[in-house]
Parts: sequence; structure tokens; C-alpha cells
Amino acid sequence: MTHPRSPLAPATFPDLPQVAGVIPRVARARYKAWDRCDLTFVTLAPGTTVAGVTTQSRCPSPEVEWCRQALPLGRARALVVNAGNSNAFTGDRGRAAVEAIAARAAAHLGCQPSDIFVASTGVIGVPLPIDRAEAGLDAAFVAEPCDWRAATDAIGTTDTFPKAAMTHAMIGDRRVSFVGIIKGSGMIAPDMATMLGFLFTDAAIEAGFLQRALDEANARSFSCITVDGDTSTSDTVLAFATGAAGNPAIAGDDDPGADAVRAAIADLCLQLAHLVVRDGEGASKFIAITVEGAVSDASARTVALSIANSPLVKTAIAGGDANWGRIVMAVGKAGEPAERDRLAIRFGATPVAMNGLAVEGYDEAPVAAHLAGDEVEIGVDLGLGDGRATVWTCDLTHGYISINADYRS
Amino acid sequence: MTHPRSPLAPATFPDLPQVAGVIPRVARARYKAWDRCDLTFVTLAPGTTVAGVTTQSRCPSPEVEWCRQALPLGRARALVVNAGNSNAFTGDRGRAAVEAIAARAAAHLGCQPSDIFVASTGVIGVPLPIDRAEAGLDAAFVAEPCDWRAATDAIGTTDTFPKAAMTHAMIGDRRVSFVGIIKGSGMIAPDMATMLGFLFTDAAIEAGFLQRALDEANARSFSCITVDGDTSTSDTVLAFATGAAGNPAIAGDDDPGADAVRAAIADLCLQLAHLVVRDGEGASKFIAITVEGAVSDASARTVALSIANSPLVKTAIAGGDANWGRIVMAVGKAGEPAERDRLAIRFGATPVAMNGLAVEGYDEAPVAAHLAGDEVEIGVDLGLGDGRATVWTCDLTHGYISINADYRS
Repeated sequence: MTHPRSPLAPATFPDLPQVAGVIPRVARARYKAWDRCDLTFVTLAPGTTVAGVTTQSRCPSPEVEWCRQALPLGRARALVVNAGNSNAFTGDRGRAAVEAIAARAAAHLGCQPSDIFVASTGVIGVPLPIDRAEAGLDAAFVAEPCDWRAATDAIGTTDTFPKAAMTHAMIGDRRVSFVGIIKGSGMIAPDMATMLGFLFTDAAIEAGFLQRALDEANARSFSCITVDGDTSTSDTVLAFATGAAGNPAIAGDDDPGADAVRAAIADLCLQLAHLVVRDGEGASKFIAITVEGAVSDASARTVALSIANSPLVKTAIAGGDANWGRIVMAVGKAGEPAERDRLAIRFGATPVAMNGLAVEGYDEAPVAAHLAGDEVEIGVDLGLGDGRATVWTCDLTHGYISINADYRS
Repeated sequence: MTHPRSPLAPATFPDLPQVAGVIPRVARARYKAWDRCDLTFVTLAPGTTVAGVTTQSRCPSPEVEWCRQALPLGRARALVVNAGNSNAFTGDRGRAAVEAIAARAAAHLGCQPSDIFVASTGVIGVPLPIDRAEAGLDAAFVAEPCDWRAATDAIGTTDTFPKAAMTHAMIGDRRVSFVGIIKGSGMIAPDMATMLGFLFTDAAIEAGFLQRALDEANARSFSCITVDGDTSTSDTVLAFATGAAGNPAIAGDDDPGADAVRAAIADLCLQLAHLVVRDGEGASKFIAITVEGAVSDASARTVALSIANSPLVKTAIAGGDANWGRIVMAVGKAGEPAERDRLAIRFGATPVAMNGLAVEGYDEAPVAAHLAGDEVEIGVDLGLGDGRATVWTCDLTHGYISINADYRS
């Protein structure tokens, strides 16, 4: 089942640089009855450091548990990504599949299994077939290196367009590259729309600093997007730094290049997060929701996500309806401090409600024009403090229902 | 805009008894450009006690604030319900409207304004027009008493069918009656689908006991239903006991009839709650979700509501898809204690997953037959403790999107 390309997709796939020390390859493991590459094998130069963030789900996949165990060691030699089968909720057999993949890749590279990171996305509840994974890996070991586009296509499942981004940073007089690829179109979808994201850089960055930079970026990007409020059992974002650029490894905030690297990782994560929202199932509008005046940043984020996850707000935006009553409702149900009589709401630049009631005779024309576009901004000021957050989501349309209900697994 | 009668509606409106001491009347306040009764005025015999539960929203309507202030006094002489305008998020002018209604009804009856309970449902952000409310009240004061069907119709807004229920209880050798009427079809809807429910009995019940019985019933009924996870700024349930039956007033658990009254109130609340779910916007299936084996009843309810509010679960049921992977996902995101390898899931009576993986070769025929019906049961056993809860919801269909997006306010 393929869905039409999202109307919010960028016009073209970006022109991405090679990243020294990173070699992607793809192969056909045939996890489903399809004729496409569905196994991605990325080798990483010796000395590569790694950081990662994984799903908050209390029922994570064995891949997530594997990565969580390996991350504290801070080093990586390869990444294996399986598409078409998430291997989640598969008990001992799922764990065995991950161990077999790590063992085989480690034997091939002459490293420890804990140097191999594994991520899978696709149907839940079916153990990943070990024989197909091993045959796919063997094919990948002998395949020619591929470009980023091929790797991005190979990790995709229900994605309607391939998602990748890049940026650069200067460390002293060295220019280092950052490339990211990501897949995901619902938080979890018909049978396979987990978010898996992978960042690669040739900068030398110690694992502890890389983890802090990724955590900080994640808090303002992947943790601030929602398509349907549902959380995958497999969501994983990993960052790999090969050190091939030869800079003195960055370990702390005062090291040369530390600020530039943090900024580049934040930039890359935000680009990738926005791409996922732009491929939200059935999305016809990209929505940015900024909440200001909250008692804290965390409170602002909770309120913003309450608005972003409200089916009634999302359907109102789909219908181009300036229904700010639904925003009041979503603020009210968030459970965070809010006072009706201090609340202000705007669509785009136009205030529609202030101080507890509708703005008398506000000009509806710019609001209607703003809501007719495919990028919508909602602003809410709670009038209580300095807390602030922005989250991004998409609208809820017939397309979402068609993708998720008009379907049998 | 009217929507077709829900396919889950009962075949007929129930045959309801008169309740001694309760006299309903209706009138046309014309809160919208419609030709129907939209103001309900229910007089209650002197000595009537009252209890109530209201929305958890942090931005409640002035009606909700009014009822919260009056409830601790424990007595009521009348109920006024306005349909077509919720008067929510209307600042000082909204408060003034409620005060004017209470003052006029109190003057008519010769009682205190705090004896008058007011509830409104409809569009948010437009102050209730005081002149129309007063004219409507004046018309109601001189109208003939009406039957329950007329009162139920008059409180309705986007409801596709009128919702009412009844039960009886024995207090010693006296048979007392309980009648409930309710409106609501989303937690809040296109412009007006707040849940407002009113229970009436001729039993004599002290206000404190009535409140405890209502709280207990609410926790297992209205607090266990969800249509779209959205919470109205106006949700209100009030219970009135006129005492006209002449029984010794029930004040404590050991008083004659106490158990029967608690059971009757629980029964009535559950009947009314189920009727709201059966009118869920776009609903094609009534879904009961029971979670057992949780660490506590509260934890079970949180997990059950996470499943009930998941758009992916709701769309899967709409599509008749036994996609238990989405249930695993919803259990995982609930944030409550859960261990994947102890989780068991059933559809109807058929187990589909146990001990961390799919039941090998389970018979799909009874599952498909169960999901094809219009009443679906999902059972989840977390395998951790004795906590248990059942919640009720409906599926998420194209109908929901049509009602909420294909619409301009």
C-alpha cells in the first residue's frame, strides 16, 4: 500500500555531502513480499562515538533495549536498520534476532557485538526472521557503498517521501559536516511508521558531550512534534561522530567548536523533526503552536502539546476554521496553571481573543487567508510567567482515517 | 447542521415516570436562529437537596463556577439549562448573564439565587444574551409543565438522539424513582457538544450522602468514557433529591435504603454515560476496554484510557482490524507499570497475544466476527497486580472528520 506524496513535502531531496568515516550500504532482506532494499548497513570508522535517545514507551522493542545497553559504552562500528518488521512485542525470539544480527556484523568487522547498533521498523508482533536478516547482512557486506538517497529510501516504510537534511560547522579552521536521515509518518502507523533517525558527522566529539548535545536538541525538536499523540515502541534517534575530520575531540562546553557543534546538532534535529511532521499521515497543513506566558517552559510545552494533540483543534485547522474556542478547551484540559481571563490567542499575527473574551470586531480576512495556507501558526499567551515552548504538528483529515482505518493488517 | 441518528442509538426513547417534586418546563429563548425550545426550567420542591460534579478544565465556564459555589450549600429550587450558547470564555459579561438568570428565577420562586442551578451548552466565546435568557425564562414561568422527552430535546445540541434513563429503588417499603437526562456527543463538538447530565429522584437524601454517592458513581461512569479525549469547559452533572417520597432522609451508609440508593445512582450514571458514547461523533462501534492485572485500579484506568484515546486503536476498530500491536503501543505510552513479556490481549473472548508474543495460530474467525459487530470488547491483562478498570469509547471514523472539519464556525 502506497500513499500519495505529502503535499507538504519539500520539492527535492537535498544534496548531501559524504561524511568521512561513514560508509552506507543497502541490501534486500525481503522482510516483506516486496522488491526493494530493506536492510541498511552503515559502517563507521574505528573510534566513532555514539549517543542516542529512545522511546518513552514502557513496552519498547528488543532493538531499543539493545541500544540502551550499548549506548553507555559510547562507541560504535556499525548501524543495521531493518524496514518492514519492527520486531517489537516478540519476546525471546525478538531478542535472539537482535543478538544474531549484532554477532554477525561484529564478526564481519572484527569488533564487539556492543559496537553494533540495530533499529527495526514495521509490523509489531512478528519476530524478525533471523535467516532473512543474516542473508541480507551477508549481501550488504559485499555490496558497493551507496549514496544517502539509497540509504534513506531503504529505511523508509509508509513514508511518502525520503527525509534527509545537512548542515556544517566550523571547529577552529576545520569545516565539519553533519548529515541526518530519518523515517516516520505517524508516531506509529498502519503497520509501520515508527520514527527512526540517524545523524552522522566527521567531527571528533566525545560520547558524553555528544549525548548532552543530542539530549538538548531532542528536547526542542523530536520531543516537540506530534502527529497523533501515539508513541511507537521503537522510536530511536542515534548520533554518530567518526572523528575523521581530525579536530581535537570536543569534550566540554569550553572546548573550541563546542558551541558550533551544539548548534549544528540542534539545527539538524529540528530540520529532521519538521520533515516528519510534513509527512504526518493525511497532513494537509503544517502547524506551529507557540505557548508563551506559562509558569515554566515545561508547563508551556505541556499546554502546547495538549493543543497539538486535540482532535478538535486539528480538525478545525483542517477545515480552515478559526475556532479558538477549541484552543481554550485544549488549554483548559492540559491541567497546567491557566487563567481564562488572562488568556490571549492569535492565528498568524492576528489576535482573536484577549483577556477572557473575543477581540471585538477583529478582522477576519487575514485570519481566513492565514488558515487557507499550508503553514499555520497558533499563538497562545497564558499571561502568567516567562515559560515558553513551540511544538509542531499537522492537521487531522480524512486522509488520516483512510490510511489507518480503511485497511486490514 | 444536523447529523444522521447514530447507528448505535437505542430503538426508542424510554418510558419515564414523573418524579414527585420535579416539574420541567421548556421555552424558546432563541439563542440561535432556530425554531425550537432551547431553555429548560425545572422547578424543584422546597427541601430538595443537590450534589454535582463538574469539568476538570482549568478554564471552566461561569455556569460551572456558579454551580461550584452553590453546591456546598446543598439545596436547590430550580435548574435552568440553556442550549445553543455555552457562555464559556466570555469574561465579566458571561458572569453577569448567569447572575441575571439566577436572580430572575429566584425572584419568581421566592428563594435565594444560590438555590438556582444554571448550565449552558453551545458555542464558546459569545456572551449569553441576557435579554433572550430573561425573555425565555419569563415564557417558561407561565408555560405548561412538559414531559421528559420535551426537556431532553430542549437541552440537546449536536446530539443525534435524545438520551434519558430511569431506575427504581426500595427504601424500606417505599419505591422511589430515579430519572436522568443527558446531552453530549463529543467531549466538546463543532460548536456545542458539552456533556450536561441531570438526575432527579423523589427520595429524601441528605446532600452529603448524595454527593458521595454521585462521586462514587461518576468515578465508574462519566469519568470512564471518552469520545475524543477532549474535555469541555462546561461539563456538569447534577443530582437532585426532592424528598417527596417521604422516606426518612438517608444520611449515612447504615441508614435504611442507603445501599439501594447508591446502587440506583450508579446504575443511572452508567446508563447515561453509555448513551453519550453511543452518540460519539461519527461512532459506528461501541467499545468496552477492560484492563486487569494492573498495580492499582487507578493505573488500570489510566492504561484503559490511553487505549481508548489512541487514534490508531480507534481507527483500527473502525476498520475491523485486529491490530493488537496498536494496543501494545497504547499500553506502552500510558506511562504506567507494564511489562511487555507479561501482557495478554484479547478481542471478545479470543486471546490474541500472551506472554510477550502473538498466540500461535489463534483462530481469526471469531475475532473477525466479533470486530464486525457494533459492540466490541477489548481485554488487556497486565499480569502485575489486582488493579482493574473498564472504560467505554467509540471508534474514530470519517464521520468524526466530516462533523468536525467539514464545517465553518
